Amino acid sequence: MARIVMKFGGTSMAGIERIRTVAKLVKREWEAGNQIAVVVSAMAGDTDRLVGFCREASSLYDPREYDVVVSSGEQVTSGLLAIALQAAGVPARSWLGWQLPIRTSDVHASARIEDIDTTELDRSLAAGEIAVIPGFQGATEGNRVTTLGRGGSDTSAVAMAAAMKADRCDIYTDVDGVYTTDPRIVPRARKLQKVTYEEMLELASVGAKVLQTRSVGLAMKEGVRVQVLSSFVGEDGVVRPGTLIVGEEEIDDMERQLITGIAHDKNEAKVTLVEVPDRPGAVAAIFGPLAAGGINVDMIVQNIAHATGSTDVTFTVPKADLARAIDLLEKARGEIGYTKLIHDTRIAKITVVGVGMRSHAGVAATMFATLGARGINILAITTSEIKVSVLIEEDYTELAVRVLHTAYGLDAAEEPEAA
Amino acid sequence: MARIVMKFGGTSMAGIERIRTVAKLVKREWEAGNQIAVVVSAMAGDTDRLVGFCREASSLYDPREYDVVVSSGEQVTSGLLAIALQAAGVPARSWLGWQLPIRTSDVHASARIEDIDTTELDRSLAAGEIAVIPGFQGATEGNRVTTLGRGGSDTSAVAMAAAMKADRCDIYTDVDGVYTTDPRIVPRARKLQKVTYEEMLELASVGAKVLQTRSVGLAMKEGVRVQVLSSFVGEDGVVRPGTLIVGEEEIDDMERQLITGIAHDKNEAKVTLVEVPDRPGAVAAIFGPLAAGGINVDMIVQNIAHATGSTDVTFTVPKADLARAIDLLEKARGEIGYTKLIHDTRIAKITVVGVGMRSHAGVAATMFATLGARGINILAITTSEIKVSVLIEEDYTELAVRVLHTAYGLDAAEEPEAA
Repeated sequence: MARIVMKFGGTSMAGIERIRTVAKLVKREWEAGNQIAVVVSAMAGDTDRLVGFCREASSLYDPREYDVVVSSGEQVTSGLLAIALQAAGVPARSWLGWQLPIRTSDVHASARIEDIDTTELDRSLAAGEIAVIPGFQGATEGNRVTTLGRGGSDTSAVAMAAAMKADRCDIYTDVDGVYTTDPRIVPRARKLQKVTYEEMLELASVGAKVLQTRSVGLAMKEGVRVQVLSSFVGEDGVVRPGTLIVGEEEIDDMERQLITGIAHDKNEAKVTLVEVPDRPGAVAAIFGPLAAGGINVDMIVQNIAHATGSTDVTFTVPKADLARAIDLLEKARGEIGYTKLIHDTRIAKITVVGVGMRSHAGVAATMFATLGARGINILAITTSEIKVSVLIEEDYTELAVRVLHTAYGLDAAEEPEAA
Repeated sequence: MARIVMKFGGTSMAGIERIRTVAKLVKREWEAGNQIAVVVSAMAGDTDRLVGFCREASSLYDPREYDVVVSSGEQVTSGLLAIALQAAGVPARSWLGWQLPIRTSDVHASARIEDIDTTELDRSLAAGEIAVIPGFQGATEGNRVTTLGRGGSDTSAVAMAAAMKADRCDIYTDVDGVYTTDPRIVPRARKLQKVTYEEMLELASVGAKVLQTRSVGLAMKEGVRVQVLSSFVGEDGVVRPGTLIVGEEEIDDMERQLITGIAHDKNEAKVTLVEVPDRPGAVAAIFGPLAAGGINVDMIVQNIAHATGSTDVTFTVPKADLARAIDLLEKARGEIGYTKLIHDTRIAKITVVGVGMRSHAGVAATMFATLGARGINILAITTSEIKVSVLIEEDYTELAVRVLHTAYGLDAAEEPEAA
């Protein structure tokens, strides 16, 4: 007997027919003798509808009331899945965030889970009952409803798995695992059997949208074994194994690759401030106002000083925040002292990730050489212990991903058959 | 300063534009210095959508999970109204059923309110905050979500008013008050300024669908002054006074009418069992199975025995239950011993209501004479202290209502101007 958390996203919950399919998958695990908690998202589109209502009611909506409104989507699907499970002959009940309770911080609309009380839940699971738990929601100490921010259901599932000391947290989604890169760009991309938390974090943060970044960080911290797999089963009704996300110690040397995957991200914009005076405090004058405005700055490149005693500073911000960033920087122009602000949205970030690169030199060199050989200009570089990211012109994105995939030996032996 | 409960139905909450209108009405009462709790329904159509999901998931859905699903509609509108009130510059917060809490029985899907804890609410109201409370929902002692059954939001509002010791419970709806009869049938129908609880109960139970019957019974028991009025205001934004539903002692003799109103109901079907043996227990054999089947029998007429020692028994049941009633009666045929079952759905019940008739003979006689003069045949009669109901052929419904309205002197002096 194992304890398993199964998490289903909005596409899997979109309509009663699909909810019935989910009930079948859950029943199968239950019949195998496992104790099961299911964490569900709202029906696809429902959260958008509810968020739309709040925005229409007021652009400055109270996040406490927003949470009351938008948390209802998961309340609906958890009740419906409990009904569908019962109809399939399986004892089940829903547990709303306040019922367990799932205690969170009081930062409404992006709360953090602080504690999950599993006393009653354990009793219910021990009695053979399946627990259906709405993702994305919780309650404060003062009993106000909270939500965890968009995509928070993955985090709910991992937090539940940690609290329940589950053997595994299976995240069912519309892809069947984590790939070496986006298969729409590289048909010979391979599904990874295992990937480490750190690698998954890097991949998730640079555009591989399989799992919400926060959920991966939490899984790493709590040591929760996460599996990403598809809820769309074939004719035989059997679920194919997905990708396991685990600690580095669970991946033996034979399995280990130098590079695990290649991600790309087109959601950043590049900003360059020209001729910033090269003096102490100059950088703080730039990034202080952006941080205060809640804008997430990613790559930062500062060249050596010009002979004039000034320097150019380049960095990236999310495209969605570009207009606001420019506004903030123009207001701070006097203090920063740059002569010109240049921005560019037609850029992409390419990242190669792999824990193996810790012990192998030359990963970055291979990257630069491979891109250079195709005439792809590198606009900026950042590195960490397990990744190298470069900024390039957006038009070269797919080409760059393909040539790097080949260069690092990630191509599958054969192209998959056409689906 | 007064304490007021304001209740808004699904039509008033259908969409953000209407919710903003509601916020304006609420703000006006708040600016007048009153303490306000607002009870809201789900958006029109939303409860039907959610009920539909449950039925699709399983025809034998667990009512505990049904309650989790369908209570979400009011959760959404209460959060949205709180946002709209804040946007209008009024402090407001939502209080879900479990947050107050509103304690109910554990008869899921048709729970009864047992107790409302207003400790925290009182503090919030005293601080000048408007409380927005989802109607229709509550929570059991064991913290499961409950709903009160369809139309339960009126009951929620009256129960809140009783718990808060409110001076008034204003039920905003799509009509502007209680009329002497349906103005679509009688253009000269008059809006009543006041009506007693008992009269309203009789009117509500025979088809005047302004208020849910249970809410009127509760208002009577708790002595809550209820006002029915329209949420659709004119150009000037001023709400017109509606109809007050109060205790008999609040209506002075000058205001008192012999007859308060005339209602009609086309939702009943007539069943006659022919030649039922005239022996003790015969009636129990008929109505026992129907009661066990949860079928609400209304008018019952048993004629005197035929010379043969048998009698015909006629009664009405809701049209929606007719097929099931026939089925139950056919199964019990051996025990009851009737020779034939006749049924008729083309009937209507006409009811004249008025506390004044207690002290005046001749109300029933006027009714029979008035209908007889127009050749309208009376199929059955029931009376209570403050009403007389007759069953007639459905085709005569409008004619009967009109001639009775005139006969009892209820016609307004002039027809209203065309709207």
